[in-house]
Amino acid sequence: MPAPRAIAFDVIETLFPLGPLRPLFPRIGLQESDLEPFFASLLRDAFALDTCGIYKPFAEVARASLEQMGIASDAADTIFNGFPNLAAHPDVRPGFERLAGEGVPVIALTNGNADVTRTLVERNGLAELVSRVISIDEIGVWKPRARVYTYAAEAAGVAPSDMALVACHPWDCQGAMSAGLTAGFVRRGHAYGSAMNAPQVRGDSLPAVVDELLAL
Amino acid sequence: MPAPRAIAFDVIETLFPLGPLRPLFPRIGLQESDLEPFFASLLRDAFALDTCGIYKPFAEVARASLEQMGIASDAADTIFNGFPNLAAHPDVRPGFERLAGEGVPVIALTNGNADVTRTLVERNGLAELVSRVISIDEIGVWKPRARVYTYAAEAAGVAPSDMALVACHPWDCQGAMSAGLTAGFVRRGHAYGSAMNAPQVRGDSLPAVVDELLAL
Repeated sequence: MPAPRAIAFDVIETLFPLGPLRPLFPRIGLQESDLEPFFASLLRDAFALDTCGIYKPFAEVARASLEQMGIASDAADTIFNGFPNLAAHPDVRPGFERLAGEGVPVIALTNGNADVTRTLVERNGLAELVSRVISIDEIGVWKPRARVYTYAAEAAGVAPSDMALVACHPWDCQGAMSAGLTAGFVRRGHAYGSAMNAPQVRGDSLPAVVDELLAL
Repeated sequence: MPAPRAIAFDVIETLFPLGPLRPLFPRIGLQESDLEPFFASLLRDAFALDTCGIYKPFAEVARASLEQMGIASDAADTIFNGFPNLAAHPDVRPGFERLAGEGVPVIALTNGNADVTRTLVERNGLAELVSRVISIDEIGVWKPRARVYTYAAEAAGVAPSDMALVACHPWDCQGAMSAGLTAGFVRRGHAYGSAMNAPQVRGDSLPAVVDELLAL
Protein backbone atom coordinates (compact mmCIF):
# COMPACT_ATOMS: atom_id res chain seq x y z
CA MET A 1 0.00 0.00 0.00
CA PRO A 2 1.24 3.57 -0.71
CA ALA A 3 1.51 6.30 1.96
CA PRO A 4 -2.05 7.57 2.56
CA ARG A 5 -3.13 10.96 1.16
CA ALA A 6 -5.87 11.22 3.80
CA ILE A 7 -6.38 9.45 7.13
CA ALA A 8 -9.65 8.62 8.82
CA PHE A 9 -9.65 8.07 12.57
CA ASP A 10 -12.11 6.03 14.52
CA VAL A 11 -13.47 8.24 17.31
CA ILE A 12 -14.81 6.35 20.34
CA GLU A 13 -11.95 4.77 22.31
CA THR A 14 -9.40 5.46 19.54
CA LEU A 15 -9.43 9.25 20.13
CA PHE A 16 -11.57 9.54 23.29
CA PRO A 17 -11.28 6.76 25.90
CA LEU A 18 -14.50 5.71 27.65
CA GLY A 19 -12.88 5.38 31.11
CA PRO A 20 -14.54 8.58 32.43
CA LEU A 21 -17.94 6.91 31.89
CA ARG A 22 -17.02 4.11 34.32
CA PRO A 23 -17.97 5.90 37.59
CA LEU A 24 -21.38 6.73 36.07
CA PHE A 25 -22.44 3.06 36.02
CA PRO A 26 -22.80 2.63 39.82
CA ARG A 27 -25.03 5.73 39.82
CA ILE A 28 -27.64 3.80 37.81
CA GLY A 29 -27.34 0.56 39.77
CA LEU A 30 -24.73 -1.18 37.61
CA GLN A 31 -21.07 -2.00 38.26
CA GLU A 32 -18.07 -0.04 36.97
CA SER A 33 -17.10 -3.26 35.15
CA ASP A 34 -20.35 -3.05 33.16
CA LEU A 35 -18.74 -0.46 30.86
CA GLU A 36 -17.10 -3.19 28.76
CA PRO A 37 -20.17 -5.44 28.26
CA PHE A 38 -22.30 -2.33 27.61
CA PHE A 39 -20.06 -1.15 24.77
CA ALA A 40 -19.39 -4.63 23.33
CA SER A 41 -23.07 -5.59 23.35
CA LEU A 42 -24.01 -2.23 21.82
CA LEU A 43 -21.73 -2.95 18.86
CA ARG A 44 -22.80 -6.62 18.71
CA ASP A 45 -26.45 -5.58 18.40
CA ALA A 46 -25.73 -2.78 15.94
CA PHE A 47 -23.76 -5.15 13.68
CA ALA A 48 -26.57 -7.74 13.96
CA LEU A 49 -29.17 -5.16 12.94
CA ASP A 50 -26.92 -4.13 10.04
CA THR A 51 -26.74 -7.79 8.95
CA CYS A 52 -30.56 -7.79 8.94
CA GLY A 53 -30.60 -4.65 6.77
CA ILE A 54 -31.91 -2.44 9.57
CA TYR A 55 -30.26 0.89 10.42
CA LYS A 56 -30.61 2.33 13.91
CA PRO A 57 -28.38 5.20 15.09
CA PHE A 58 -25.89 4.90 17.93
CA ALA A 59 -28.06 6.46 20.66
CA GLU A 60 -30.97 4.11 19.96
CA VAL A 61 -28.85 0.96 20.04
CA ALA A 62 -26.99 2.22 23.12
CA ARG A 63 -30.28 2.84 24.91
CA ALA A 64 -31.48 -0.67 24.04
CA SER A 65 -28.18 -2.13 25.22
CA LEU A 66 -28.69 -0.53 28.64
CA GLU A 67 -32.36 -1.59 28.59
CA GLN A 68 -31.21 -5.20 28.19
CA MET A 69 -29.04 -4.64 31.27
CA GLY A 70 -32.16 -3.60 33.18
CA ILE A 71 -31.75 0.18 32.88
CA ALA A 72 -34.74 2.42 32.18
CA SER A 73 -34.54 5.14 29.56
CA ASP A 74 -34.21 8.11 31.95
CA ALA A 75 -31.43 6.42 33.93
CA ALA A 76 -29.63 5.73 30.65
CA ASP A 77 -29.29 9.50 30.19
CA THR A 78 -26.81 9.51 33.07
CA ILE A 79 -24.45 7.50 30.85
CA PHE A 80 -25.24 9.37 27.64
CA ASN A 81 -24.63 12.74 29.29
CA GLY A 82 -21.06 11.61 29.91
CA PHE A 83 -20.21 11.20 26.23
CA PRO A 84 -19.81 14.90 25.24
CA ASN A 85 -17.39 15.44 28.15
CA LEU A 86 -14.81 12.81 27.23
CA ALA A 87 -11.17 13.90 27.05
CA ALA A 88 -8.91 13.02 24.13
CA HIS A 89 -5.95 10.68 24.61
CA PRO A 90 -2.92 13.00 25.09
CA ASP A 91 -1.27 11.57 21.95
CA VAL A 92 -4.09 12.71 19.65
CA ARG A 93 -2.95 16.32 19.27
CA PRO A 94 0.69 15.49 18.39
CA GLY A 95 -0.53 12.84 15.92
CA PHE A 96 -2.90 15.27 14.21
CA GLU A 97 -0.28 18.07 14.21
CA ARG A 98 2.14 15.77 12.45
CA LEU A 99 -0.46 15.22 9.72
CA ALA A 100 -1.26 18.94 9.49
CA GLY A 101 2.45 19.55 8.92
CA GLU A 102 2.42 17.07 6.05
CA GLY A 103 -0.82 18.46 4.57
CA VAL A 104 -2.63 15.15 5.06
CA PRO A 105 -6.29 15.76 5.96
CA VAL A 106 -7.72 14.17 9.10
CA ILE A 107 -11.27 12.78 9.01
CA ALA A 108 -13.12 11.71 12.14
CA LEU A 109 -15.13 8.67 11.03
CA THR A 110 -17.56 7.54 13.68
CA ASN A 111 -20.32 5.02 14.36
CA GLY A 112 -21.51 7.63 16.85
CA ASN A 113 -23.41 10.85 16.48
CA ALA A 114 -21.98 13.74 14.42
CA ASP A 115 -23.00 16.50 16.86
CA VAL A 116 -21.52 14.71 19.87
CA THR A 117 -18.34 14.10 17.88
CA ARG A 118 -18.08 17.75 16.80
CA THR A 119 -18.59 18.78 20.43
CA LEU A 120 -15.79 16.43 21.52
CA VAL A 121 -13.46 17.72 18.81
CA GLU A 122 -14.19 21.35 19.73
CA ARG A 123 -14.02 20.95 23.52
CA ASN A 124 -10.67 19.19 23.14
CA GLY A 125 -9.32 22.04 21.01
CA LEU A 126 -8.87 19.85 17.95
CA ALA A 127 -11.28 21.60 15.57
CA GLU A 128 -8.60 23.26 13.43
CA LEU A 129 -6.85 19.90 13.00
CA VAL A 130 -9.90 17.91 11.80
CA SER A 131 -10.97 18.58 8.23
CA ARG A 132 -14.28 16.73 8.50
CA VAL A 133 -16.47 14.74 10.87
CA ILE A 134 -18.40 11.91 9.19
CA SER A 135 -21.01 9.98 11.13
CA ILE A 136 -22.60 6.78 9.81
CA ASP A 137 -25.90 8.68 10.10
CA GLU A 138 -24.94 10.20 6.72
CA ILE A 139 -24.56 6.75 5.19
CA GLY A 140 -27.14 4.56 6.91
CA VAL A 141 -24.92 1.53 7.61
CA TRP A 142 -22.45 0.84 10.41
CA LYS A 143 -18.74 0.30 10.22
CA PRO A 144 -17.35 -2.28 9.41
CA ARG A 145 -19.53 -2.28 6.25
CA ALA A 146 -17.33 -1.34 3.27
CA ARG A 147 -19.59 1.49 2.16
CA VAL A 148 -18.64 3.59 5.20
CA TYR A 149 -14.95 3.54 4.35
CA THR A 150 -15.38 4.13 0.62
CA TYR A 151 -17.79 7.00 1.43
CA ALA A 152 -15.09 8.58 3.59
CA ALA A 153 -12.53 8.20 0.79
CA GLU A 154 -14.95 9.84 -1.67
CA ALA A 155 -15.53 12.67 0.81
CA ALA A 156 -11.75 13.18 1.02
CA GLY A 157 -11.47 13.05 -2.77
CA VAL A 158 -9.02 10.13 -2.80
CA ALA A 159 -9.14 6.50 -3.91
CA PRO A 160 -9.71 3.95 -1.11
CA SER A 161 -6.16 2.69 -1.64
CA ASP A 162 -4.87 6.23 -0.95
CA MET A 163 -6.65 6.40 2.39
CA ALA A 164 -5.86 4.87 5.77
CA LEU A 165 -8.02 4.19 8.79
CA VAL A 166 -6.53 4.36 12.26
CA ALA A 167 -8.43 2.55 15.00
CA CYS A 168 -7.88 0.68 18.25
CA HIS A 169 -10.49 -1.93 17.24
CA PRO A 170 -9.47 -4.91 15.12
CA TRP A 171 -13.00 -5.17 13.64
CA ASP A 172 -12.65 -1.59 12.34
CA CYS A 173 -9.20 -2.26 10.85
CA GLN A 174 -10.61 -5.38 9.16
CA GLY A 175 -13.52 -3.41 7.71
CA ALA A 176 -11.19 -0.76 6.32
CA MET A 177 -8.88 -3.37 4.74
CA SER A 178 -11.83 -5.27 3.25
CA ALA A 179 -12.90 -1.97 1.66
CA GLY A 180 -9.45 -1.45 0.13
CA LEU A 181 -8.01 1.03 2.65
CA THR A 182 -4.76 0.76 4.60
CA ALA A 183 -5.22 0.06 8.31
CA GLY A 184 -3.22 1.35 11.27
CA PHE A 185 -3.90 -0.27 14.63
CA VAL A 186 -3.15 1.78 17.71
CA ARG A 187 -2.86 -0.31 20.86
CA ARG A 188 -4.94 1.15 23.64
CA GLY A 189 -4.04 -1.60 26.07
CA HIS A 190 -5.41 -4.39 23.88
CA ALA A 191 -3.78 -6.91 21.57
CA TYR A 192 -4.83 -7.37 17.94
CA GLY A 193 -6.64 -10.72 17.91
CA SER A 194 -5.62 -13.28 15.31
CA ALA A 195 -9.14 -13.78 13.90
CA MET A 196 -8.78 -10.59 11.83
CA ASN A 197 -6.32 -9.96 9.00
CA ALA A 198 -3.15 -8.25 10.20
CA PRO A 199 -3.13 -4.45 9.79
CA GLN A 200 -0.38 -2.88 7.66
CA VAL A 201 0.79 -0.79 10.63
CA ARG A 202 0.51 -1.12 14.39
CA GLY A 203 1.94 0.95 17.21
CA ASP A 204 1.63 2.02 20.82
CA SER A 205 0.69 5.64 20.17
CA LEU A 206 -1.14 7.70 17.58
CA PRO A 207 2.01 9.57 16.42
CA ALA A 208 3.87 6.25 16.09
CA VAL A 209 1.12 4.83 13.88
CA VAL A 210 0.89 8.04 11.86
CA ASP A 211 4.66 8.12 11.32
CA GLU A 212 4.68 4.55 10.08
CA LEU A 213 1.75 5.20 7.75
CA LEU A 214 3.49 8.24 6.28
CA ALA A 215 6.62 6.17 5.74
CA LEU A 216 4.83 3.55 3.62
CA MET B 1 -47.92 -16.29 11.79
CA PRO B 2 -49.25 -19.88 11.99
CA ALA B 3 -48.27 -22.36 14.73
CA PRO B 4 -44.79 -23.62 13.83
CA ARG B 5 -44.36 -27.14 12.39
CA ALA B 6 -40.73 -27.23 13.56
CA ILE B 7 -38.85 -25.20 16.17
CA ALA B 8 -35.19 -24.29 16.17
CA PHE B 9 -33.55 -23.42 19.48
CA ASP B 10 -30.52 -21.28 19.99
CA VAL B 11 -28.03 -23.27 22.08
CA ILE B 12 -25.54 -21.14 24.05
CA GLU B 13 -27.29 -19.35 26.93
CA THR B 14 -30.78 -20.22 25.63
CA LEU B 15 -30.41 -23.95 26.47
CA PHE B 16 -27.10 -24.00 28.37
CA PRO B 17 -26.27 -21.03 30.61
CA LEU B 18 -22.65 -19.88 30.68
CA GLY B 19 -22.59 -19.22 34.44
CA PRO B 20 -20.45 -22.32 35.19
CA LEU B 21 -17.67 -20.76 33.07
CA ARG B 22 -17.49 -17.76 35.40
CA PRO B 23 -15.16 -19.30 38.07
CA LEU B 24 -12.75 -20.32 35.29
CA PHE B 25 -11.89 -16.69 34.48
CA PRO B 26 -9.91 -15.95 37.68
CA ARG B 27 -7.84 -19.07 36.96
CA ILE B 28 -6.42 -17.36 33.86
CA GLY B 29 -5.91 -13.96 35.47
CA LEU B 30 -9.21 -12.35 34.52
CA GLN B 31 -12.24 -11.43 36.65
CA GLU B 32 -15.47 -13.42 36.97
CA SER B 33 -17.19 -10.35 35.51
CA ASP B 34 -15.14 -10.79 32.32
CA LEU B 35 -17.53 -13.54 31.16
CA GLU B 36 -19.97 -10.97 29.77
CA PRO B 37 -17.48 -8.82 27.79
CA PHE B 38 -15.80 -12.03 26.55
CA PHE B 39 -19.00 -13.40 25.08
CA ALA B 40 -20.32 -10.05 23.80
CA SER B 41 -17.03 -9.16 22.12
CA LEU B 42 -16.78 -12.65 20.62
CA LEU B 43 -20.15 -12.15 18.90
CA ARG B 44 -19.31 -8.53 17.99
CA ASP B 45 -16.15 -9.66 16.21
CA ALA B 46 -17.83 -12.65 14.56
CA PHE B 47 -20.62 -10.44 13.19
CA ALA B 48 -18.04 -7.89 12.00
CA LEU B 49 -16.10 -10.61 10.17
CA ASP B 50 -19.36 -11.83 8.63
CA THR B 51 -20.07 -8.27 7.43
CA CYS B 52 -16.64 -8.34 5.75
CA GLY B 53 -17.49 -11.66 4.05
CA ILE B 54 -15.04 -13.66 6.17
CA TYR B 55 -16.09 -16.86 7.94
CA LYS B 56 -14.25 -18.00 11.04
CA PRO B 57 -15.66 -20.72 13.32
CA PHE B 58 -16.67 -20.12 16.94
CA ALA B 59 -13.49 -21.48 18.55
CA GLU B 60 -11.23 -19.26 16.45
CA VAL B 61 -13.16 -16.07 17.18
CA ALA B 62 -13.46 -17.04 20.86
CA ARG B 63 -9.70 -17.55 21.07
CA ALA B 64 -9.07 -14.16 19.47
CA SER B 65 -11.55 -12.54 21.85
CA LEU B 66 -9.56 -13.86 24.82
CA GLU B 67 -6.32 -12.88 23.07
CA GLN B 68 -7.59 -9.29 22.92
CA MET B 69 -8.18 -9.53 26.68
CA GLY B 70 -4.51 -10.48 27.10
CA ILE B 71 -4.94 -14.26 27.35
CA ALA B 72 -2.52 -16.62 25.60
CA SER B 73 -3.79 -19.53 23.57
CA ASP B 74 -3.00 -22.28 26.11
CA ALA B 75 -4.65 -20.38 28.97
CA ALA B 76 -7.72 -19.94 26.76
CA ASP B 77 -8.15 -23.72 26.81
CA THR B 78 -9.13 -23.45 30.48
CA ILE B 79 -12.25 -21.59 29.36
CA PHE B 80 -12.90 -23.75 26.29
CA ASN B 81 -12.67 -26.95 28.32
CA GLY B 82 -15.63 -25.71 30.35
CA PHE B 83 -18.02 -25.59 27.38
CA PRO B 84 -18.74 -29.35 26.99
CA ASN B 85 -19.63 -29.58 30.70
CA LEU B 86 -22.40 -26.99 30.79
CA ALA B 87 -25.74 -28.03 32.30
CA ALA B 88 -29.06 -27.33 30.60
CA HIS B 89 -31.55 -24.92 32.13
CA PRO B 90 -34.02 -27.12 34.07
CA ASP B 91 -36.91 -25.95 31.87
CA VAL B 92 -35.36 -27.33 28.66
CA ARG B 93 -36.48 -30.94 29.13
CA PRO B 94 -40.16 -30.13 29.87
CA GLY B 95 -40.21 -27.72 26.91
CA PHE B 96 -38.76 -30.32 24.54
CA GLU B 97 -41.07 -33.06 25.91
CA ARG B 98 -44.08 -30.88 25.21
CA LEU B 99 -42.94 -30.60 21.58
CA ALA B 100 -42.24 -34.35 21.34
CA GLY B 101 -45.82 -34.95 22.51
CA GLU B 102 -47.08 -32.71 19.69
CA GLY B 103 -44.82 -34.28 17.09
CA VAL B 104 -43.02 -30.98 16.45
CA PRO B 105 -39.33 -31.58 15.70
CA VAL B 106 -36.68 -29.76 17.75
CA ILE B 107 -33.58 -28.45 16.00
CA ALA B 108 -30.54 -27.16 17.90
CA LEU B 109 -29.28 -24.25 15.76
CA THR B 110 -25.97 -22.95 16.98
CA ASN B 111 -23.24 -20.44 16.17
CA GLY B 112 -21.03 -22.86 18.10
CA ASN B 113 -19.41 -26.13 17.22
CA ALA B 114 -21.54 -29.16 16.24
CA ASP B 115 -19.51 -31.72 18.21
CA VAL B 116 -19.56 -29.65 21.40
CA THR B 117 -23.30 -29.14 20.97
CA ARG B 118 -23.94 -32.86 20.43
CA THR B 119 -21.88 -33.60 23.54
CA LEU B 120 -23.96 -31.11 25.55
CA VAL B 121 -27.22 -32.59 24.24
CA GLU B 122 -26.08 -36.14 25.07
CA ARG B 123 -24.58 -35.40 28.50
CA ASN B 124 -27.79 -33.62 29.47
CA GLY B 125 -29.89 -36.62 28.39
CA LEU B 126 -31.66 -34.69 25.66
CA ALA B 127 -30.53 -36.70 22.63
CA GLU B 128 -33.83 -38.47 22.02
CA LEU B 129 -35.66 -35.13 22.10
CA VAL B 130 -33.47 -33.31 19.53
CA SER B 131 -34.05 -34.29 15.92
CA ARG B 132 -31.00 -32.48 14.57
CA VAL B 133 -28.02 -30.34 15.56
CA ILE B 134 -27.09 -27.71 12.97
CA SER B 135 -23.92 -25.67 13.39
CA ILE B 136 -23.14 -22.64 11.25
CA ASP B 137 -20.00 -24.57 10.23
CA GLU B 138 -22.32 -26.35 7.74
CA ILE B 139 -23.39 -23.02 6.25
CA GLY B 140 -20.36 -20.75 6.47
CA VAL B 141 -22.11 -17.66 7.81
CA TRP B 142 -23.12 -16.65 11.34
CA LYS B 143 -26.55 -16.06 12.77
CA PRO B 144 -28.20 -13.53 12.42
CA ARG B 145 -27.62 -13.85 8.64
CA ALA B 146 -30.89 -14.99 7.02
CA ARG B 147 -29.30 -17.94 5.25
CA VAL B 148 -28.77 -19.78 8.57
CA TYR B 149 -32.47 -19.72 9.43
CA THR B 150 -33.71 -20.64 5.96
CA TYR B 151 -31.13 -23.46 5.87
CA ALA B 152 -32.58 -24.83 9.11
CA ALA B 153 -36.11 -24.63 7.70
CA GLU B 154 -34.98 -26.51 4.58
CA ALA B 155 -33.34 -29.14 6.79
CA ALA B 156 -36.63 -29.55 8.68
CA GLY B 157 -38.55 -29.72 5.40
CA VAL B 158 -40.79 -26.77 6.19
CA ALA B 159 -41.25 -23.26 4.81
CA PRO B 160 -39.57 -20.48 6.86
CA SER B 161 -43.04 -19.21 7.85
CA ASP B 162 -43.82 -22.65 9.34
CA MET B 163 -40.75 -22.56 11.54
CA ALA B 164 -39.99 -20.74 14.79
CA LEU B 165 -36.75 -19.84 16.49
CA VAL B 166 -36.57 -19.69 20.27
CA ALA B 167 -33.69 -17.69 21.74
CA CYS B 168 -32.80 -15.54 24.72
CA HIS B 169 -30.95 -13.09 22.45
CA PRO B 170 -32.84 -10.27 20.75
CA TRP B 171 -30.33 -10.21 17.87
CA ASP B 172 -31.14 -13.88 17.15
CA CYS B 173 -34.91 -13.28 17.27
CA GLN B 174 -34.43 -10.34 14.88
CA GLY B 175 -32.42 -12.48 12.47
CA ALA B 176 -35.09 -15.19 12.47
CA MET B 177 -37.88 -12.69 11.84
CA SER B 178 -35.92 -10.97 9.07
CA ALA B 179 -35.60 -14.42 7.45
CA GLY B 180 -39.37 -14.99 7.64
CA LEU B 181 -39.52 -17.21 10.74
CA THR B 182 -41.60 -16.72 13.87
CA ALA B 183 -39.57 -15.73 16.94
CA GLY B 184 -40.03 -16.72 20.57
CA PHE B 185 -37.98 -14.83 23.14
CA VAL B 186 -37.27 -16.60 26.41
CA ARG B 187 -36.19 -14.24 29.16
CA ARG B 188 -33.08 -15.49 30.87
CA GLY B 189 -32.88 -12.53 33.21
CA HIS B 190 -32.65 -9.97 30.42
CA ALA B 191 -35.18 -7.61 28.85
CA TYR B 192 -35.83 -7.50 25.09
CA GLY B 193 -34.29 -4.19 24.00
CA SER B 194 -36.39 -1.85 21.90
CA ALA B 195 -33.86 -1.53 19.05
CA MET B 196 -35.00 -4.88 17.61
CA ASN B 197 -38.45 -5.70 16.21
CA ALA B 198 -40.74 -7.25 18.83
CA PRO B 199 -40.88 -11.06 18.79
CA GLN B 200 -44.25 -12.74 18.24
CA VAL B 201 -43.97 -14.55 21.57
CA ARG B 202 -42.07 -13.91 24.79
CA GLY B 203 -42.09 -15.71 28.11
CA ASP B 204 -40.21 -16.46 31.29
CA SER B 205 -39.57 -20.14 30.61
CA LEU B 206 -39.02 -22.46 27.67
CA PRO B 207 -42.32 -24.37 28.18
CA ALA B 208 -44.22 -21.05 28.41
CA VAL B 209 -42.72 -19.87 25.11
CA VAL B 210 -43.33 -23.26 23.47
CA ASP B 211 -46.96 -23.30 24.63
CA GLU B 212 -47.59 -19.85 23.24
CA LEU B 213 -45.97 -20.74 19.93
CA LEU B 214 -48.11 -23.89 19.62
CA ALA B 215 -51.22 -21.80 20.34
CA LEU B 216 -50.58 -19.39 17.44
